[in-house]
Amino acid sequence: MARGRAGGREWSCTPHDVTAQTPPRRREPLGTEKVKQPPAHVEPVSTMLLLLRRAVAPGLRQACRLKSTPARLCIRACCTNDPFRPQRSSFAFSGGGSSTRGWKVMGTLLGLGAALACHDQQCRASQEPPRRYTREEVKAHSSPETGVWVTLGCEVFDITEFVDIHPGGASKLMLAAGGPLEPFWALYAVHNQPHVREMLAEYKIGELSPDDKAPSILKTSDPYADDPTRHSALKVNTQRPFNAEPPPELLTESYITPNPIFFTRNHLPVPNVDPDTYRLNVAGPPGGQALCLSLDDLYQFPRHEVTVTLQCAGNRRSEMSQFKEVRGLEWSLGAISTARWAGARLCDVLAQAGHQLCETEAHVCFEGLDSDPTGTPYGASIPLARAMDPEAEVLLAYEMNGQPLPRDHGFPVRVVVPGVVGARHVKWLGKVSVEPEESFSHWQRRDYKGFCPSVDWDTVDFDSAPSIQELPVQSAITQPKEGETIEAGEVTVRGYAWSGGGRAVVRVDVSLDGGLTWQVAELEGEEQRARKAWAWRLWHLQAPLPAGKKELNIVCKAVDDSYNVQPDTVAPIWNLRGVLNNAWHRVHVHVTP
Amino acid sequence: MARGRAGGREWSCTPHDVTAQTPPRRREPLGTEKVKQPPAHVEPVSTMLLLLRRAVAPGLRQACRLKSTPARLCIRACCTNDPFRPQRSSFAFSGGGSSTRGWKVMGTLLGLGAALACHDQQCRASQEPPRRYTREEVKAHSSPETGVWVTLGCEVFDITEFVDIHPGGASKLMLAAGGPLEPFWALYAVHNQPHVREMLAEYKIGELSPDDKAPSILKTSDPYADDPTRHSALKVNTQRPFNAEPPPELLTESYITPNPIFFTRNHLPVPNVDPDTYRLNVAGPPGGQALCLSLDDLYQFPRHEVTVTLQCAGNRRSEMSQFKEVRGLEWSLGAISTARWAGARLCDVLAQAGHQLCETEAHVCFEGLDSDPTGTPYGASIPLARAMDPEAEVLLAYEMNGQPLPRDHGFPVRVVVPGVVGARHVKWLGKVSVEPEESFSHWQRRDYKGFCPSVDWDTVDFDSAPSIQELPVQSAITQPKEGETIEAGEVTVRGYAWSGGGRAVVRVDVSLDGGLTWQVAELEGEEQRARKAWAWRLWHLQAPLPAGKKELNIVCKAVDDSYNVQPDTVAPIWNLRGVLNNAWHRVHVHVTP
Repeated sequence: MARGRAGGREWSCTPHDVTAQTPPRRREPLGTEKVKQPPAHVEPVSTMLLLLRRAVAPGLRQACRLKSTPARLCIRACCTNDPFRPQRSSFAFSGGGSSTRGWKVMGTLLGLGAALACHDQQCRASQEPPRRYTREEVKAHSSPETGVWVTLGCEVFDITEFVDIHPGGASKLMLAAGGPLEPFWALYAVHNQPHVREMLAEYKIGELSPDDKAPSILKTSDPYADDPTRHSALKVNTQRPFNAEPPPELLTESYITPNPIFFTRNHLPVPNVDPDTYRLNVAGPPGGQALCLSLDDLYQFPRHEVTVTLQCAGNRRSEMSQFKEVRGLEWSLGAISTARWAGARLCDVLAQAGHQLCETEAHVCFEGLDSDPTGTPYGASIPLARAMDPEAEVLLAYEMNGQPLPRDHGFPVRVVVPGVVGARHVKWLGKVSVEPEESFSHWQRRDYKGFCPSVDWDTVDFDSAPSIQELPVQSAITQPKEGETIEAGEVTVRGYAWSGGGRAVVRVDVSLDGGLTWQVAELEGEEQRARKAWAWRLWHLQAPLPAGKKELNIVCKAVDDSYNVQPDTVAPIWNLRGVLNNAWHRVHVHVTP
Repeated sequence: MARGRAGGREWSCTPHDVTAQTPPRRREPLGTEKVKQPPAHVEPVSTMLLLLRRAVAPGLRQACRLKSTPARLCIRACCTNDPFRPQRSSFAFSGGGSSTRGWKVMGTLLGLGAALACHDQQCRASQEPPRRYTREEVKAHSSPETGVWVTLGCEVFDITEFVDIHPGGASKLMLAAGGPLEPFWALYAVHNQPHVREMLAEYKIGELSPDDKAPSILKTSDPYADDPTRHSALKVNTQRPFNAEPPPELLTESYITPNPIFFTRNHLPVPNVDPDTYRLNVAGPPGGQALCLSLDDLYQFPRHEVTVTLQCAGNRRSEMSQFKEVRGLEWSLGAISTARWAGARLCDVLAQAGHQLCETEAHVCFEGLDSDPTGTPYGASIPLARAMDPEAEVLLAYEMNGQPLPRDHGFPVRVVVPGVVGARHVKWLGKVSVEPEESFSHWQRRDYKGFCPSVDWDTVDFDSAPSIQELPVQSAITQPKEGETIEAGEVTVRGYAWSGGGRAVVRVDVSLDGGLTWQVAELEGEEQRARKAWAWRLWHLQAPLPAGKKELNIVCKAVDDSYNVQPDTVAPIWNLRGVLNNAWHRVHVHVTP
């Protein structure tokens, strides 16, 4: 039994864990049946890896890259899939089909072992006094051309030759290139095992200079100086306010997005809220009494949990701005993430304050504790009808994936409005009130609205368009990446699909020829709940490539249960703010001969 | 004050009616203010028409066709807009702008008068003994080439030269070409006025032969022999079962579709139900009691009224089959209509029978009294959650536009499921039950589902797709028509837009250049209710044409309040049954130099 620590929490791995802790929504390997490893088969795996690494000749190294062996070593970090279980790592193997499964797993192991073995003779640096490097020097080694260096603790490793044989894929390992491994190992705890550390030790080239300090923190005069530290995998759009998204390689790695790489959309500096003195003000109805709720008060309401995908209205804006300039953050396809949220239902809190559904249209207005230099807080609203509907499951959430909300995601309390654009999920919630009109906030009335492509900044009338609430059907490809070169034979396409308003994704079509012909992708995970499909579906398609094909124009489009579809192209839905891009997602890749 | 009968109901027209009976949702003339005619101005109009007709020289005839006078004589038949008021006709005039309004109205009247006057010398047939014609002979005169004849009672008229100057438009008059005027006059009661009959008398060429019988009815051995008589304006797709749609010219003529031209989608012969012996069977929950409701019983439930647009899943199928063959009726764009329905709410009836919402998914199954030769009735189902939600307003309807349901539309009781595909609005309702599964009806499980374009009849798996319930956002152009030649200067584009699930239409974009540039159309009528936008929006765009333009590719696309949009093209949403075509609607027209 292995023991260790990951992300500050203890983990353990026993053979029994492998089958016992499979989370219900975990993604299955491509087009394969799950290989149920009996406990007795598991323990030998890490031993086998080590033995193989030493036994197999370096010449076999390329074996693990052969595309003709479709089996893949599937290492799962369960803690990232289901945060409500203790963090543990597990191993499971999957083959391309049950009949040849055993051989394929063996083939993969042989290849991997061979690859690791080939480095035995090169890496002898650990025998000599350590050479010293600065963090700057490490950072300068972040590509195949410069060499790929990483750090773990104070140790520096040159993993250039390991990148291509990283079992999780080269692109995922490259996310750490030039920097520390810790943030990634914290997410994917499978790395915290003796044989992985032993493998890594082979690549050690020295240590960080003791004089080299960690990067200096921001000046205190900066209103953003108190912002939290972020995960280095995030692709940062702006630092102040902080806006960042996970890279495609990690986005659909698990159904639940780990908190540290959940996309972050801040409009203002992150407030630092003391949970002991925190109070949520809920205005009462006319003549009624206001509520002033501490965190403990909020915990007294029935706890409700729901898995919800949040998407920024600007997700995929970068594709829109390629067509014509827009104003907004250049989000790629990662301004979307999924978490398991827990909190009090808004309808319960509103009812406690004496609010009821009324015949006339009304709105629940939210104010955040984040504010601009004039003291104006972030604000937004949703219709009262949605807020009061228990089936809509609107939460005042205090937990995200089993943890207190991270500061970037609204600690201690945020609104979660399933099926609705991210902008209404107000973070650091300070005030709730019921009003006859929508929030007068800039972000409700002068932003987050859609317009005709012909509307420009001279002609725009923000009052003419409704504020975005439910979002349209959406999907995107996370694998392969734009411009990537893939090997001939077969391609695996992966991605996500989601629709607003609780509408379930019923189908994802994938084209390899730019939209001329289509194949149906396999939807992963369980069927979604009718009318409450608040979270995305991950999907994949494994398809043979026509011989001689030199490039592919891969396209995806999703259909929801109202049979709404995505539009073919970006231009006709272009709008000056670059929101609501749900055109077919297109990825152009090269194929090796 | 004029009096007469239209459609079996008495109507009357007094000057006071013109302003008093304006229905709330009536369509306004293009880009103009409504001209509020004081009562005293109205009575002289018909007199003026007659005087003008006699006074103005024949050479002025072309004046009323001049496009440079954009004013139009707007004759409204209020009874078709608001069926809950007594049927009356009214006159109102609108000009292109308030400043020049008076002159434009006068210009139109002069032109019309001139046009009518020019026939005085030609039409003297009424002075001689009547010539006799058969119905076949009349029918043979239905185009400008053969001459355009119509009948009224036993009289025959050659209106060839009047067609182009018909105030309601040539295309609408041509719908009656070769047949009787009565069905159209019954819809548009403004025709039932002395001066109109006087005008028509000028064109009389003879009478129907007394020996000529009305068209023989179907043989009694035919299961469809007892089907009702239909309106001649309907474009028939199949006679047995009867499937027909209103022509585009009439479809958006009024917000409420008159009952006789409401699109009809029958799957089987129309049952002839005796309202006195009619019973609706509502199965009770396990251990509960079934209800057996007479019509009078149903009337005892609270009466609920709601305006709902029904759309067949196959609407616009003909465009899909142009791309690639499909199996299904060749609907044009008229398999959609709007009515004001009244009845008992399904939730009230189900509650009376002892049904409640349950945690597990359940379905309300409906059976019609129409059945095939094996006795299998038409059937369909909707989720119990929708049926039990008072806000979803699902009706057991017994009234359509203030009348008992017409036989073609389910007399005496049909289901109306706002926001949901027409196929679930079961007509001639015989039985309601709550089941753990969807209806096992062919039409629920083996039809009315969407598939990927790659799925054909060899590979289709009907169980793999959800039954269509809510429909996606839709819009179409009803004016101008495909292939039409329009005059240079300015174009008026009209159409409808609708979305399923109560989602409101928030914008319609129109392009005159095939989708390169877009203009925002004007939505007519009132704002829709949030979450309950069950009925369509009519819209129009009046736009100048670039000089020298010889043809236009007009396109429309709508956006709903979830910001779902229509896809650009048909091919990627093509499916073997040809359902769910909501691609941009495109109309190609020629422009006169």
